[in-house]
Amino acid sequence: MENQRLVIIGGVAAGMSAASKARRLSSDMEILVFERSGYVSYIACGMPYLISNKVKSSNSLVVYDSKFFKESRNIDVFLHQEVTRIFPQRKVILVRDIQTGEEREYLYSKLLISTGARPVYPLIKGRDLKGIFTLRLLEDGIAIKDYIKNNSPRAGLILGAGSIGMEMAEAFSEAGIQVTVIERTSNILGTMDDEINSIVEQELERKGVTLLKSKNVTEFTGKGSFVSKTILENGESIDTDIVIIGAGVKPNSEIARDAGIELGRTGAIKVNERMETSIPDIYSAGDCAEAYHLIYGRNVYMPLGTVANKQGRVAGENIAGGNASFAGIVGTSVFKVFDLEVGRTGLTEKEAKNEGMDYVSNTIDHISRAPYYPGASTIRIKLVAERKTGRLLGAQVVGKDGAAKRVDVLATAVTARMTANEIQNLDLGYSPPFSPDYDPVLIAASELQKRKGGVN
Amino acid sequence: MENQRLVIIGGVAAGMSAASKARRLSSDMEILVFERSGYVSYIACGMPYLISNKVKSSNSLVVYDSKFFKESRNIDVFLHQEVTRIFPQRKVILVRDIQTGEEREYLYSKLLISTGARPVYPLIKGRDLKGIFTLRLLEDGIAIKDYIKNNSPRAGLILGAGSIGMEMAEAFSEAGIQVTVIERTSNILGTMDDEINSIVEQELERKGVTLLKSKNVTEFTGKGSFVSKTILENGESIDTDIVIIGAGVKPNSEIARDAGIELGRTGAIKVNERMETSIPDIYSAGDCAEAYHLIYGRNVYMPLGTVANKQGRVAGENIAGGNASFAGIVGTSVFKVFDLEVGRTGLTEKEAKNEGMDYVSNTIDHISRAPYYPGASTIRIKLVAERKTGRLLGAQVVGKDGAAKRVDVLATAVTARMTANEIQNLDLGYSPPFSPDYDPVLIAASELQKRKGGVN
Repeated sequence: MENQRLVIIGGVAAGMSAASKARRLSSDMEILVFERSGYVSYIACGMPYLISNKVKSSNSLVVYDSKFFKESRNIDVFLHQEVTRIFPQRKVILVRDIQTGEEREYLYSKLLISTGARPVYPLIKGRDLKGIFTLRLLEDGIAIKDYIKNNSPRAGLILGAGSIGMEMAEAFSEAGIQVTVIERTSNILGTMDDEINSIVEQELERKGVTLLKSKNVTEFTGKGSFVSKTILENGESIDTDIVIIGAGVKPNSEIARDAGIELGRTGAIKVNERMETSIPDIYSAGDCAEAYHLIYGRNVYMPLGTVANKQGRVAGENIAGGNASFAGIVGTSVFKVFDLEVGRTGLTEKEAKNEGMDYVSNTIDHISRAPYYPGASTIRIKLVAERKTGRLLGAQVVGKDGAAKRVDVLATAVTARMTANEIQNLDLGYSPPFSPDYDPVLIAASELQKRKGGVN
Repeated sequence: MENQRLVIIGGVAAGMSAASKARRLSSDMEILVFERSGYVSYIACGMPYLISNKVKSSNSLVVYDSKFFKESRNIDVFLHQEVTRIFPQRKVILVRDIQTGEEREYLYSKLLISTGARPVYPLIKGRDLKGIFTLRLLEDGIAIKDYIKNNSPRAGLILGAGSIGMEMAEAFSEAGIQVTVIERTSNILGTMDDEINSIVEQELERKGVTLLKSKNVTEFTGKGSFVSKTILENGESIDTDIVIIGAGVKPNSEIARDAGIELGRTGAIKVNERMETSIPDIYSAGDCAEAYHLIYGRNVYMPLGTVANKQGRVAGENIAGGNASFAGIVGTSVFKVFDLEVGRTGLTEKEAKNEGMDYVSNTIDHISRAPYYPGASTIRIKLVAERKTGRLLGAQVVGKDGAAKRVDVLATAVTARMTANEIQNLDLGYSPPFSPDYDPVLIAASELQKRKGGVN
């Protein structure tokens, strides 16, 4: 077999995972990565901590640079290169050098589209003023950190109360910036149920964050070229020295669509369990692609770094002649906001209801450690189970002490299709510094089992 | 049906769980609990923290007192009462009042033996000197705390390097006592493999604890009636102001044996999944009884508070006419020693080998959080799986940050009979404060899968 060439569009989590995996399995395949930004293989999830100064240097967020990939793995990385077209019939891509504008074609044997996602950027008047940022690329994180250093903003505004908004509220607060969070809908955290959100809202209040729900921003106004005020639909005006727009993301799937590759109902690129798209020799992975959800039993759009890493590895293995399958997700995600750990796995009650499922759900508050042991605090767990079988469909956890890892216990139970009855009987570890004698996970399952009624 | 009388021998975890569960299901059953010590329903596992002064008062370790049980649950608790005989044919027990010596018979309809376990107390010369303690009853914990307060011991000796010995090494150290741990065998923590023990030994050394392995104590000598020296077999003499004997426990099963109740091969009381013994209407639960182990597929002796609680509930439910089954254990236990969290679930490699299983095992070190996030440290995970199927047989985890809860994730996986391949694909939560992008659990499973070879 003559030498194959793998071309990868986008070199962050999925792209570089695929490149590395393919190289491990195939020493002679040529591997080219085109990345639009100035960095590959960086950890986007770490940026709030770069901004809060918990992480001092952006170098800490770059796992490996392009020099490493060339020298250690013989992977050619081209930075500041935008792939603008794919020609599947000729097996060619068109690449534009962002700095020179020069265009060039490259042949591929196998192509991986790992173009990621981009922030939704609402059409708000004045959004081009200085001091208004989105947070997606490492360049964004660096720019925000520099802006804070150079301009010492006092009033920070965060548009969107999702998990990124929450992480940024903490980051701003730690950087000494007074924070206002504005949410268009009546709910923070669309991915969580109300019982969890109410605890998060209390935490925001305790930490001095102003939360405005059901409010629309119509305009940013400036002092010179710098943002200075946020204007709401009701006419209210809020002093604003810096803005983060965290209104969600959408998949960079247009380049695939334009090449005739099938998109899913979510608008992201449709893939099978081998991470193949609808066109032969073209794969996709990461935030531009869908992921198979084990509970829904279909593809969903859930752009997360862990999923991107895993999908990238599967794509890389198959491209190199292997036979790997992406095992699917159960919708697990966790984040930290101030002193709280917040997480979910499987379906929320809202999601189970939207899906028309016959479910039962219950929420408990229980202590995180033996009550007499220092550091004990309340954990809230909401569980959702299939009514007929008691099978766990999903869980949400919030608390100060060990909430995130309990999500992992429940994610494992969801994946194993365990019932509430099986979960309440789990032989979990107990020692006063870590749990009360019945861990909150066991209490939650036991109460859900009672709510459900009957025996399984 | 005329009123039934439930008699319970021993009122700690299993006994009071059973009493409370039976009362919830049956409002008219008479419930009598005979407890030899002066306390019921206390948390034995909390005593190291009482001694270290993390917990100020022994009252914090008593969940409910006998007055509460009488007034709120109509359960009659008799303290300082030792049950000395069971006459199954007459359905009678003989009770001796420890303070007056008076004996009295009580009829029962149903009997629960929850007599717990007692410390193994090696026949060492001088062991009756003041300052030498075991740690089992709440009275023991209170006596040790008082002794430290009144005698300000400087040199503490702990006999036995099991988990209680480790917890007490920490407790003494926090109480300002210089600690020596003496272990008869060549291994600390008989319940763990060497890869875990080596990390624990490093921690002991770092914290200034002297660990002597393969040493036998032959004598304690005193100054007056107080212990002052420990003499080893090799003639060595160690200054000693206080001693804790932590050489394991054995089940208080003699009263059952003497009544003709079948014991298991472990010497503990044999029970079925309903917690019934070999004699009708006599149940047993807790540290005097065996527990069904899901991986071994047979009863084992593993005296732990969580197991006692669960077995007690099952016994109480069945005694009250219900139909509950004890779901079994997978041998999970966790403890803290200084800055380390240490835990296990399923089988260790030693245990798998003893069992003659065809297994594969692997140990990894991985970081606990994103490497740039404050508080990140190394976690070590050892996994053991069935070679042919890849099914996880057991896991051990040690580390400073989140090791204990990762044991729970793995205990859930062991219970669900997951394979290494399934575990490496788990959709666990990721956020820099809680995990690296691939959690150590996933890395451990992935490396085990490689070690195993092949695909499942």
